[in-house]
Amino acid sequence: MFIVGENISVTSKIVGDSIRNRDAEPIIKMARAQKEAGANYVDVNIGPATKNGEELMQWIVRTIQDNVDVVLALDTKNTSAIEAGLQVHKGIAMINSVTADQDKLDVLMPMAKKYNAKIVGIALSEKGVPPDVDSRIEIIMNIVNSAMENGVPLSDLYLDPIVLPVAVLQHQVLNCIEGLKAFKQLMDLMGLPDSPKTIVGLSNVSQSSPPELKSLINRTYLAILLSHGLDCAILDPLDRDLMATVKTFDILTNRILYAHSYLD
Amino acid sequence: MFIVGENISVTSKIVGDSIRNRDAEPIIKMARAQKEAGANYVDVNIGPATKNGEELMQWIVRTIQDNVDVVLALDTKNTSAIEAGLQVHKGIAMINSVTADQDKLDVLMPMAKKYNAKIVGIALSEKGVPPDVDSRIEIIMNIVNSAMENGVPLSDLYLDPIVLPVAVLQHQVLNCIEGLKAFKQLMDLMGLPDSPKTIVGLSNVSQSSPPELKSLINRTYLAILLSHGLDCAILDPLDRDLMATVKTFDILTNRILYAHSYLD
Repeated sequence: MFIVGENISVTSKIVGDSIRNRDAEPIIKMARAQKEAGANYVDVNIGPATKNGEELMQWIVRTIQDNVDVVLALDTKNTSAIEAGLQVHKGIAMINSVTADQDKLDVLMPMAKKYNAKIVGIALSEKGVPPDVDSRIEIIMNIVNSAMENGVPLSDLYLDPIVLPVAVLQHQVLNCIEGLKAFKQLMDLMGLPDSPKTIVGLSNVSQSSPPELKSLINRTYLAILLSHGLDCAILDPLDRDLMATVKTFDILTNRILYAHSYLD
Repeated sequence: MFIVGENISVTSKIVGDSIRNRDAEPIIKMARAQKEAGANYVDVNIGPATKNGEELMQWIVRTIQDNVDVVLALDTKNTSAIEAGLQVHKGIAMINSVTADQDKLDVLMPMAKKYNAKIVGIALSEKGVPPDVDSRIEIIMNIVNSAMENGVPLSDLYLDPIVLPVAVLQHQVLNCIEGLKAFKQLMDLMGLPDSPKTIVGLSNVSQSSPPELKSLINRTYLAILLSHGLDCAILDPLDRDLMATVKTFDILTNRILYAHSYLD
Protein backbone atom coordinates (compact mmCIF):
# COMPACT_ATOMS: atom_id res chain seq x y z
CA MET A 1 0.00 0.00 0.00
CA PHE A 2 1.14 3.47 -0.96
CA ILE A 3 1.31 5.84 2.03
CA VAL A 4 1.47 9.63 2.21
CA GLY A 5 2.49 10.85 5.68
CA GLU A 6 0.16 13.61 6.86
CA ASN A 7 1.99 14.93 9.90
CA ILE A 8 3.66 18.06 8.54
CA SER A 9 0.63 20.30 8.54
CA VAL A 10 0.27 23.92 9.54
CA THR A 11 -2.76 22.88 11.61
CA SER A 12 -0.32 21.34 14.16
CA LYS A 13 1.14 23.83 16.62
CA ILE A 14 4.72 22.52 16.31
CA VAL A 15 4.60 22.80 12.52
CA GLY A 16 2.88 26.20 12.63
CA ASP A 17 5.57 27.57 14.94
CA SER A 18 8.37 25.99 12.89
CA ILE A 19 7.04 27.54 9.72
CA ARG A 20 6.63 31.00 11.26
CA ASN A 21 10.14 30.97 12.70
CA ARG A 22 11.72 29.12 9.76
CA ASP A 23 12.89 26.61 12.36
CA ALA A 24 14.07 23.65 10.31
CA GLU A 25 14.79 21.02 12.96
CA PRO A 26 11.24 19.92 13.98
CA ILE A 27 10.20 19.65 10.33
CA ILE A 28 13.25 17.61 9.35
CA LYS A 29 12.62 15.31 12.32
CA MET A 30 8.97 14.77 11.37
CA ALA A 31 9.85 14.06 7.75
CA ARG A 32 12.53 11.53 8.77
CA ALA A 33 10.28 9.79 11.29
CA GLN A 34 7.48 9.37 8.74
CA LYS A 35 9.84 8.08 6.07
CA GLU A 36 11.29 5.56 8.52
CA ALA A 37 7.79 4.47 9.56
CA GLY A 38 6.97 3.56 5.97
CA ALA A 39 5.67 6.70 4.24
CA ASN A 40 6.28 6.70 0.47
CA TYR A 41 5.55 10.42 0.30
CA VAL A 42 5.55 13.12 2.97
CA ASP A 43 2.82 15.75 2.73
CA VAL A 44 3.72 19.37 3.41
CA ASN A 45 0.57 21.33 4.16
CA ILE A 46 1.45 24.99 4.51
CA GLY A 47 -2.17 26.16 4.70
CA PRO A 48 -3.59 28.96 2.51
CA ALA A 49 -0.15 30.66 2.45
CA THR A 50 -1.47 33.85 0.89
CA LYS A 51 1.62 35.81 2.03
CA ASN A 52 5.09 34.64 0.90
CA GLY A 53 3.66 31.28 -0.16
CA GLU A 54 6.26 30.76 -2.89
CA GLU A 55 9.22 31.48 -0.64
CA LEU A 56 7.75 29.40 2.19
CA MET A 57 7.10 26.34 0.00
CA GLN A 58 10.59 26.51 -1.48
CA TRP A 59 12.08 26.82 2.00
CA ILE A 60 10.21 23.79 3.33
CA VAL A 61 10.91 21.62 0.26
CA ARG A 62 14.62 22.40 0.37
CA THR A 63 14.79 22.07 4.15
CA ILE A 64 13.38 18.56 4.03
CA GLN A 65 15.05 17.27 0.87
CA ASP A 66 18.50 18.60 1.85
CA ASN A 67 18.28 16.45 4.96
CA VAL A 68 16.00 13.48 4.26
CA ASP A 69 15.87 11.28 1.16
CA VAL A 70 12.14 11.58 0.57
CA VAL A 71 9.68 12.89 -2.02
CA LEU A 72 6.93 15.33 -1.07
CA ALA A 73 3.25 16.05 -1.60
CA LEU A 74 2.82 19.81 -1.92
CA ASP A 75 -0.34 20.87 -0.16
CA THR A 76 -1.76 24.40 -0.29
CA LYS A 77 -4.56 26.30 -1.99
CA ASN A 78 -1.99 28.79 -3.27
CA THR A 79 -1.23 27.49 -6.77
CA SER A 80 1.79 29.79 -7.22
CA ALA A 81 3.28 28.29 -4.07
CA ILE A 82 2.71 24.80 -5.54
CA GLU A 83 4.59 25.79 -8.69
CA ALA A 84 7.41 27.37 -6.68
CA GLY A 85 7.72 24.10 -4.77
CA LEU A 86 7.76 22.04 -7.96
CA GLN A 87 10.60 24.21 -9.31
CA VAL A 88 12.95 23.17 -6.50
CA HIS A 89 11.61 19.68 -5.68
CA LYS A 90 13.94 16.75 -6.43
CA GLY A 91 12.33 13.56 -7.76
CA ILE A 92 8.67 13.10 -8.64
CA ALA A 93 6.50 15.44 -6.57
CA MET A 94 2.81 15.07 -5.80
CA ILE A 95 0.33 17.95 -6.01
CA ASN A 96 -2.19 17.66 -3.16
CA SER A 97 -4.86 18.46 -4.08
CA VAL A 98 -7.02 19.76 -6.92
CA THR A 99 -10.76 20.17 -6.52
CA ALA A 100 -13.05 19.89 -9.53
CA ASP A 101 -13.40 23.68 -9.92
CA GLN A 102 -12.68 24.38 -13.57
CA ASP A 103 -10.30 27.26 -12.80
CA LYS A 104 -8.25 25.05 -10.45
CA LEU A 105 -8.15 22.21 -12.97
CA ASP A 106 -7.07 24.63 -15.72
CA VAL A 107 -4.08 25.74 -13.68
CA LEU A 108 -2.98 22.59 -11.85
CA MET A 109 -3.37 19.92 -14.54
CA PRO A 110 -1.00 21.71 -16.97
CA MET A 111 1.34 22.22 -14.01
CA ALA A 112 1.32 18.48 -13.22
CA LYS A 113 2.09 17.80 -16.89
CA LYS A 114 4.87 20.39 -17.08
CA TYR A 115 6.64 19.18 -13.92
CA ASN A 116 5.88 15.49 -14.44
CA ALA A 117 4.17 15.42 -11.02
CA LYS A 118 1.60 13.07 -9.55
CA ILE A 119 -1.66 14.86 -8.76
CA VAL A 120 -4.49 14.23 -6.30
CA GLY A 121 -8.00 15.07 -7.52
CA ILE A 122 -10.69 15.33 -4.89
CA ALA A 123 -14.46 14.85 -5.23
CA LEU A 124 -15.28 18.42 -4.27
CA SER A 125 -16.62 21.07 -6.61
CA GLU A 126 -17.77 24.68 -6.41
CA LYS A 127 -21.01 23.27 -5.00
CA GLY A 128 -19.20 21.71 -2.04
CA VAL A 129 -19.44 18.13 -0.86
CA PRO A 130 -21.30 15.84 -3.30
CA PRO A 131 -24.55 14.75 -1.62
CA ASP A 132 -24.60 11.21 -3.01
CA VAL A 133 -22.61 8.49 -4.71
CA ASP A 134 -23.57 9.43 -8.27
CA SER A 135 -22.48 13.03 -7.88
CA ARG A 136 -19.15 11.83 -6.45
CA ILE A 137 -18.60 9.78 -9.61
CA GLU A 138 -19.64 12.68 -11.84
CA ILE A 139 -17.15 15.03 -10.19
CA ILE A 140 -14.35 12.48 -10.26
CA MET A 141 -14.95 11.80 -13.95
CA ASN A 142 -14.64 15.53 -14.63
CA ILE A 143 -11.20 15.37 -13.06
CA VAL A 144 -10.28 12.32 -15.16
CA ASN A 145 -11.40 14.17 -18.29
CA SER A 146 -9.33 17.20 -17.38
CA ALA A 147 -6.25 15.03 -16.85
CA MET A 148 -6.74 13.40 -20.26
CA GLU A 149 -7.27 16.76 -22.00
CA ASN A 150 -4.10 18.11 -20.44
CA GLY A 151 -2.00 15.07 -21.27
CA VAL A 152 -1.47 14.02 -17.65
CA PRO A 153 -0.86 10.23 -17.63
CA LEU A 154 -3.75 8.59 -15.76
CA SER A 155 -1.24 6.53 -13.78
CA ASP A 156 -0.14 9.82 -12.19
CA LEU A 157 -3.69 10.68 -11.14
CA TYR A 158 -4.89 9.87 -7.59
CA LEU A 159 -8.62 10.27 -7.04
CA ASP A 160 -10.07 10.96 -3.61
CA PRO A 161 -13.77 10.10 -3.09
CA ILE A 162 -13.67 12.44 -0.06
CA VAL A 163 -13.76 11.20 3.50
CA LEU A 164 -15.96 13.11 5.94
CA PRO A 165 -16.23 12.79 9.73
CA VAL A 166 -18.44 9.96 10.95
CA ALA A 167 -19.30 12.04 14.02
CA VAL A 168 -20.79 14.78 11.83
CA LEU A 169 -21.90 13.25 8.52
CA GLN A 170 -22.29 9.53 9.14
CA HIS A 171 -24.09 8.80 5.86
CA GLN A 172 -21.23 10.40 3.90
CA VAL A 173 -18.85 7.83 5.37
CA LEU A 174 -20.83 5.06 3.69
CA ASN A 175 -21.16 7.18 0.53
CA CYS A 176 -17.38 7.36 0.32
CA ILE A 177 -17.13 3.54 0.48
CA GLU A 178 -19.85 3.17 -2.14
CA GLY A 179 -18.22 5.88 -4.26
CA LEU A 180 -14.90 4.01 -4.17
CA LYS A 181 -16.62 0.75 -5.17
CA ALA A 182 -18.58 2.40 -7.99
CA PHE A 183 -15.49 4.16 -9.30
CA LYS A 184 -13.46 0.94 -9.27
CA GLN A 185 -16.22 -0.85 -11.18
CA LEU A 186 -16.39 1.95 -13.71
CA MET A 187 -12.64 1.79 -14.27
CA ASP A 188 -12.86 -1.99 -14.75
CA LEU A 189 -15.62 -1.54 -17.32
CA MET A 190 -13.68 1.16 -19.19
CA GLY A 191 -10.56 -0.98 -19.31
CA LEU A 192 -8.24 2.01 -19.74
CA PRO A 193 -4.62 1.08 -20.41
CA ASP A 194 -3.57 3.20 -17.43
CA SER A 195 -6.07 3.37 -14.60
CA PRO A 196 -6.07 6.30 -12.17
CA LYS A 197 -5.37 5.33 -8.56
CA THR A 198 -7.56 5.96 -5.55
CA ILE A 199 -6.54 7.82 -2.41
CA VAL A 200 -8.19 9.10 0.78
CA GLY A 201 -7.36 11.57 3.50
CA LEU A 202 -8.02 8.96 6.17
CA SER A 203 -7.95 10.96 9.41
CA ASN A 204 -10.93 13.06 8.33
CA VAL A 205 -13.19 10.14 9.23
CA SER A 206 -12.42 10.50 12.95
CA GLN A 207 -12.36 14.29 13.08
CA SER A 208 -14.57 15.48 15.96
CA SER A 209 -14.57 12.01 17.55
CA PRO A 210 -13.05 11.60 21.04
CA PRO A 211 -9.25 11.12 20.96
CA GLU A 212 -9.47 7.58 22.36
CA LEU A 213 -11.65 6.49 19.40
CA LYS A 214 -9.68 8.09 16.57
CA SER A 215 -7.16 5.34 15.86
CA LEU A 216 -9.81 2.59 16.08
CA ILE A 217 -12.11 4.44 13.67
CA ASN A 218 -9.23 5.24 11.29
CA ARG A 219 -7.90 1.69 11.12
CA THR A 220 -11.31 0.06 10.77
CA TYR A 221 -12.23 2.46 7.98
CA LEU A 222 -8.91 1.82 6.28
CA ALA A 223 -9.48 -1.96 6.37
CA ILE A 224 -12.89 -1.46 4.73
CA LEU A 225 -11.53 0.86 2.03
CA LEU A 226 -8.56 -1.42 1.33
CA SER A 227 -11.00 -4.32 0.98
CA HIS A 228 -12.68 -2.37 -1.80
CA GLY A 229 -9.44 -1.70 -3.64
CA LEU A 230 -8.13 1.58 -2.23
CA ASP A 231 -4.58 2.12 -3.51
CA CYS A 232 -3.23 4.87 -1.31
CA ALA A 233 -3.95 6.81 1.88
CA ILE A 234 -2.82 10.04 3.47
CA LEU A 235 -2.45 9.06 7.11
CA ASP A 236 -0.31 9.19 10.23
CA PRO A 237 2.42 6.59 9.68
CA LEU A 238 3.51 7.02 13.32
CA ASP A 239 0.23 5.43 14.50
CA ARG A 240 1.57 1.93 15.20
CA ASP A 241 -1.83 0.27 15.47
CA LEU A 242 -2.82 1.75 12.12
CA MET A 243 0.37 0.59 10.44
CA ALA A 244 -0.04 -2.87 12.02
CA THR A 245 -3.48 -3.02 10.40
CA VAL A 246 -1.99 -2.11 7.03
CA LYS A 247 0.65 -4.85 7.33
CA THR A 248 -1.89 -7.41 8.51
CA PHE A 249 -4.17 -6.53 5.60
CA ASP A 250 -1.26 -7.09 3.22
CA ILE A 251 -0.58 -10.49 4.85
CA LEU A 252 -4.21 -11.62 4.72
CA THR A 253 -4.56 -10.64 1.06
CA ASN A 254 -1.24 -12.27 0.13
CA ARG A 255 0.49 -9.03 -0.87
CA ILE A 256 3.38 -9.89 1.41
CA LEU A 257 4.56 -13.24 2.67
CA TYR A 258 3.58 -14.22 6.21
CA ALA A 259 6.24 -14.65 8.88
CA HIS A 260 5.61 -14.66 12.63
CA SER A 261 7.82 -11.54 12.73
CA TYR A 262 5.93 -9.62 10.04
CA LEU A 263 5.29 -6.62 12.31
CA ASP A 264 8.97 -6.10 13.15
CA MET B 1 -23.77 -8.62 12.93
CA PHE B 2 -24.77 -12.06 14.13
CA ILE B 3 -22.27 -13.54 16.60
CA VAL B 4 -21.77 -17.12 17.79
CA GLY B 5 -19.58 -17.27 20.91
CA GLU B 6 -16.85 -19.90 20.52
CA ASN B 7 -15.47 -20.18 24.03
CA ILE B 8 -17.20 -23.32 25.31
CA SER B 9 -15.00 -25.81 23.52
CA VAL B 10 -13.55 -29.08 24.73
CA THR B 11 -10.20 -27.92 23.36
CA SER B 12 -9.95 -25.53 26.32
CA LYS B 13 -8.64 -27.10 29.53
CA ILE B 14 -11.28 -25.50 31.76
CA VAL B 15 -14.08 -26.75 29.56
CA GLY B 16 -12.51 -30.20 29.14
CA ASP B 17 -12.22 -30.59 32.91
CA SER B 18 -15.75 -29.28 33.50
CA ILE B 19 -17.18 -31.73 31.01
CA ARG B 20 -15.29 -34.70 32.42
CA ASN B 21 -16.37 -33.87 35.98
CA ARG B 22 -19.87 -32.65 35.02
CA ASP B 23 -18.89 -29.45 36.81
CA ALA B 24 -21.61 -26.98 35.79
CA GLU B 25 -20.34 -23.69 37.22
CA PRO B 26 -17.49 -22.82 34.79
CA ILE B 27 -19.67 -23.61 31.80
CA ILE B 28 -22.59 -21.53 33.07
CA LYS B 29 -20.21 -18.64 33.72
CA MET B 30 -18.74 -18.81 30.22
CA ALA B 31 -22.17 -18.95 28.61
CA ARG B 32 -23.37 -15.95 30.63
CA ALA B 33 -20.24 -13.89 29.92
CA GLN B 34 -20.52 -14.48 26.17
CA LYS B 35 -24.21 -13.64 26.10
CA GLU B 36 -23.54 -10.42 28.03
CA ALA B 37 -20.69 -9.53 25.65
CA GLY B 38 -23.07 -9.66 22.69
CA ALA B 39 -23.20 -13.27 21.48
CA ASN B 40 -26.48 -14.17 19.74
CA TYR B 41 -25.68 -17.88 20.01
CA VAL B 42 -23.29 -19.77 22.26
CA ASP B 43 -21.44 -22.68 20.68
CA VAL B 44 -21.00 -25.89 22.69
CA ASN B 45 -18.22 -27.95 21.18
CA ILE B 46 -18.02 -31.27 23.01
CA GLY B 47 -15.46 -32.77 20.61
CA PRO B 48 -15.91 -36.20 18.95
CA ALA B 49 -17.90 -37.42 21.99
CA THR B 50 -17.85 -41.05 20.87
CA LYS B 51 -18.65 -42.25 24.39
CA ASN B 52 -21.82 -40.99 26.12
CA GLY B 53 -22.18 -38.24 23.53
CA GLU B 54 -26.00 -38.12 23.83
CA GLU B 55 -26.01 -37.87 27.61
CA LEU B 56 -23.18 -35.35 27.60
CA MET B 57 -24.86 -33.05 25.04
CA GLN B 58 -28.15 -33.17 26.93
CA TRP B 59 -26.35 -32.40 30.18
CA ILE B 60 -24.56 -29.38 28.76
CA VAL B 61 -27.63 -28.00 26.96
CA ARG B 62 -29.77 -28.27 30.11
CA THR B 63 -27.00 -26.97 32.34
CA ILE B 64 -26.66 -23.82 30.29
CA GLN B 65 -30.30 -23.18 29.41
CA ASP B 66 -31.52 -23.80 32.98
CA ASN B 67 -29.28 -20.94 34.09
CA VAL B 68 -28.78 -18.55 31.18
CA ASP B 69 -31.36 -17.24 28.72
CA VAL B 70 -29.45 -18.12 25.56
CA VAL B 71 -29.72 -20.33 22.48
CA LEU B 72 -26.99 -22.77 21.52
CA ALA B 73 -25.00 -24.03 18.56
CA LEU B 74 -24.50 -27.79 19.00
CA ASP B 75 -21.03 -28.73 17.85
CA THR B 76 -19.79 -32.32 17.56
CA LYS B 77 -19.10 -34.90 14.87
CA ASN B 78 -21.39 -37.31 16.74
CA THR B 79 -24.72 -36.88 14.96
CA SER B 80 -26.66 -38.83 17.60
CA ALA B 81 -25.36 -36.41 20.21
CA ILE B 82 -26.58 -33.52 18.04
CA GLU B 83 -30.05 -35.04 17.89
CA ALA B 84 -30.06 -35.71 21.64
CA GLY B 85 -29.20 -32.04 22.19
CA LEU B 86 -31.94 -30.87 19.83
CA GLN B 87 -34.48 -32.94 21.77
CA VAL B 88 -33.93 -30.96 24.96
CA HIS B 89 -32.89 -27.57 23.55
CA LYS B 90 -35.31 -24.67 24.17
CA GLY B 91 -35.74 -22.14 21.34
CA ILE B 92 -34.18 -22.35 17.89
CA ALA B 93 -30.93 -24.32 18.01
CA MET B 94 -28.08 -24.22 15.52
CA ILE B 95 -26.32 -27.33 14.20
CA ASN B 96 -22.59 -26.63 13.85
CA SER B 97 -21.55 -27.96 11.45
CA VAL B 98 -22.21 -30.21 8.48
CA THR B 99 -19.51 -30.94 5.93
CA ALA B 100 -20.43 -31.72 2.32
CA ASP B 101 -20.02 -35.50 2.78
CA GLN B 102 -23.19 -37.01 1.38
CA ASP B 103 -23.72 -39.30 4.39
CA LYS B 104 -23.47 -36.33 6.77
CA LEU B 105 -25.84 -34.23 4.69
CA ASP B 106 -28.32 -37.13 4.50
CA VAL B 107 -28.49 -37.29 8.28
CA LEU B 108 -28.17 -33.68 9.40
CA MET B 109 -30.34 -31.86 6.85
CA PRO B 110 -33.46 -33.90 7.71
CA MET B 111 -32.58 -33.35 11.38
CA ALA B 112 -32.43 -29.58 10.88
CA LYS B 113 -35.81 -29.76 9.15
CA LYS B 114 -37.36 -31.96 11.85
CA TYR B 115 -36.21 -29.79 14.76
CA ASN B 116 -36.59 -26.46 12.93
CA ALA B 117 -32.92 -25.72 13.59
CA LYS B 118 -30.46 -23.42 11.88
CA ILE B 119 -27.59 -25.31 10.29
CA VAL B 120 -24.01 -24.42 9.39
CA GLY B 121 -22.65 -25.96 6.18
CA ILE B 122 -18.92 -25.87 5.70
CA ALA B 123 -16.89 -25.96 2.47
CA LEU B 124 -15.18 -29.24 3.32
CA SER B 125 -15.81 -32.53 1.58
CA GLU B 126 -14.46 -36.09 1.72
CA LYS B 127 -11.54 -34.79 -0.34
CA GLY B 128 -10.60 -32.32 2.40
CA VAL B 129 -9.98 -28.59 2.02
CA PRO B 130 -10.98 -27.26 -1.41
CA PRO B 131 -7.79 -26.19 -3.21
CA ASP B 132 -9.26 -23.15 -4.98
CA VAL B 133 -12.16 -20.72 -5.11
CA ASP B 134 -14.18 -22.65 -7.69
CA SER B 135 -14.12 -25.87 -5.71
CA ARG B 136 -15.26 -23.95 -2.63
CA ILE B 137 -18.28 -22.71 -4.56
CA GLU B 138 -18.97 -26.19 -5.94
CA ILE B 139 -18.98 -27.72 -2.46
CA ILE B 140 -21.10 -24.96 -1.00
CA MET B 141 -23.65 -25.29 -3.78
CA ASN B 142 -23.92 -29.02 -2.99
CA ILE B 143 -24.88 -28.05 0.54
CA VAL B 144 -27.45 -25.55 -0.75
CA ASN B 145 -28.93 -28.27 -2.97
CA SER B 146 -29.14 -30.69 -0.08
CA ALA B 147 -30.93 -28.09 2.06
CA MET B 148 -33.46 -27.47 -0.72
CA GLU B 149 -34.04 -31.18 -1.31
CA ASN B 150 -34.65 -31.70 2.39
CA GLY B 151 -36.98 -28.74 2.76
CA VAL B 152 -34.66 -26.76 5.02
CA PRO B 153 -35.50 -23.04 4.54
CA LEU B 154 -32.46 -21.33 2.99
CA SER B 155 -32.77 -18.55 5.55
CA ASP B 156 -31.81 -21.16 8.17
CA LEU B 157 -28.67 -22.15 6.27
CA TYR B 158 -25.30 -20.62 7.22
CA LEU B 159 -22.50 -21.33 4.77
CA ASP B 160 -18.86 -21.29 5.83
CA PRO B 161 -16.26 -20.78 3.06
CA ILE B 162 -13.72 -22.24 5.51
CA VAL B 163 -11.05 -20.17 7.20
CA LEU B 164 -7.56 -21.65 7.42
CA PRO B 165 -4.51 -20.42 9.34
CA VAL B 166 -2.53 -17.66 7.65
CA ALA B 167 0.63 -18.98 9.31
CA VAL B 168 0.20 -22.36 7.59
CA LEU B 169 -1.83 -21.86 4.40
CA GLN B 170 -1.57 -18.19 3.52
CA HIS B 171 -3.04 -18.53 0.03
CA GLN B 172 -6.16 -20.21 1.48
CA VAL B 173 -6.85 -17.09 3.53
CA LEU B 174 -7.23 -15.09 0.33
CA ASN B 175 -9.20 -17.97 -1.24
CA CYS B 176 -11.71 -17.72 1.59
CA ILE B 177 -12.22 -14.00 0.92
CA GLU B 178 -12.58 -14.64 -2.82
CA GLY B 179 -14.90 -17.57 -2.13
CA LEU B 180 -17.14 -15.36 0.01
CA LYS B 181 -17.24 -12.68 -2.72
CA ALA B 182 -17.97 -15.22 -5.45
CA PHE B 183 -20.70 -16.87 -3.40
CA LYS B 184 -22.34 -13.52 -2.62
CA GLN B 185 -22.30 -12.61 -6.33
CA LEU B 186 -23.81 -15.97 -7.22
CA MET B 187 -26.61 -15.49 -4.69
CA ASP B 188 -27.30 -12.00 -6.10
CA LEU B 189 -27.51 -13.46 -9.61
CA MET B 190 -29.82 -16.25 -8.53
CA GLY B 191 -32.14 -13.85 -6.75
CA LEU B 192 -33.53 -16.55 -4.45
CA PRO B 193 -36.43 -15.39 -2.28
CA ASP B 194 -34.53 -16.57 0.82
CA SER B 195 -30.79 -16.32 0.57
CA PRO B 196 -28.54 -18.51 2.73
CA LYS B 197 -26.33 -16.58 5.12
CA THR B 198 -22.56 -16.68 5.36
CA ILE B 199 -20.54 -17.53 8.44
CA VAL B 200 -16.90 -18.16 9.36
CA GLY B 201 -15.00 -19.73 12.22
CA LEU B 202 -12.86 -16.63 12.61
CA SER B 203 -10.14 -17.72 15.06
CA ASN B 204 -8.87 -20.38 12.68
CA VAL B 205 -7.13 -17.63 10.74
CA SER B 206 -4.70 -16.95 13.59
CA GLN B 207 -4.17 -20.53 14.69
CA SER B 208 -0.41 -21.22 14.96
CA SER B 209 0.38 -17.49 15.02
CA PRO B 210 2.06 -16.02 18.12
CA PRO B 211 -0.44 -15.10 20.87
CA GLU B 212 0.33 -11.38 20.64
CA LEU B 213 -0.71 -11.36 16.96
CA LYS B 214 -3.93 -13.36 17.21
CA SER B 215 -6.40 -10.60 18.03
CA LEU B 216 -4.91 -8.23 15.43
CA ILE B 217 -5.09 -10.90 12.72
CA ASN B 218 -8.63 -11.90 13.75
CA ARG B 219 -10.04 -8.40 13.77
CA THR B 220 -8.37 -7.33 10.53
CA TYR B 221 -9.65 -10.46 8.80
CA LEU B 222 -13.12 -9.86 10.19
CA ALA B 223 -13.16 -6.30 8.85
CA ILE B 224 -12.21 -7.60 5.39
CA LEU B 225 -14.87 -10.35 5.45
CA LEU B 226 -17.56 -7.97 6.74
CA SER B 227 -16.65 -5.58 3.93
CA HIS B 228 -17.50 -8.37 1.51
CA GLY B 229 -20.86 -9.07 3.10
CA LEU B 230 -20.19 -11.70 5.76
CA ASP B 231 -23.33 -12.11 7.88
CA CYS B 232 -22.14 -14.03 10.91
CA ALA B 233 -18.98 -15.16 12.71
CA ILE B 234 -18.05 -17.70 15.32
CA LEU B 235 -15.60 -15.80 17.48
CA ASP B 236 -14.53 -14.87 20.99
CA PRO B 237 -16.99 -12.17 22.12
CA LEU B 238 -14.81 -11.53 25.18
CA ASP B 239 -12.06 -10.11 22.96
CA ARG B 240 -12.78 -6.41 23.50
CA ASP B 241 -10.65 -5.18 20.63
CA LEU B 242 -12.43 -7.56 18.28
CA MET B 243 -15.88 -6.47 19.46
CA ALA B 244 -14.82 -2.81 19.18
CA THR B 245 -13.93 -3.50 15.56
CA VAL B 246 -17.37 -5.05 14.96
CA LYS B 247 -19.10 -2.03 16.47
CA THR B 248 -16.93 0.41 14.56
CA PHE B 249 -17.63 -1.45 11.33
CA ASP B 250 -21.35 -1.15 12.03
CA ILE B 251 -20.95 2.60 12.64
CA LEU B 252 -18.91 3.21 9.49
CA THR B 253 -21.38 1.30 7.31
CA ASN B 254 -24.38 3.04 8.91
CA ARG B 255 -25.84 -0.11 10.49
CA ILE B 256 -26.01 1.65 13.84
CA LEU B 257 -26.17 5.34 14.62
CA TYR B 258 -22.96 7.06 15.69
CA ALA B 259 -22.61 8.46 19.18
CA HIS B 260 -19.33 9.35 20.90
CA SER B 261 -20.25 6.67 23.44
CA TYR B 262 -20.91 3.91 20.90
CA LEU B 263 -18.39 1.53 22.51
CA ASP B 264 -19.99 1.71 25.96
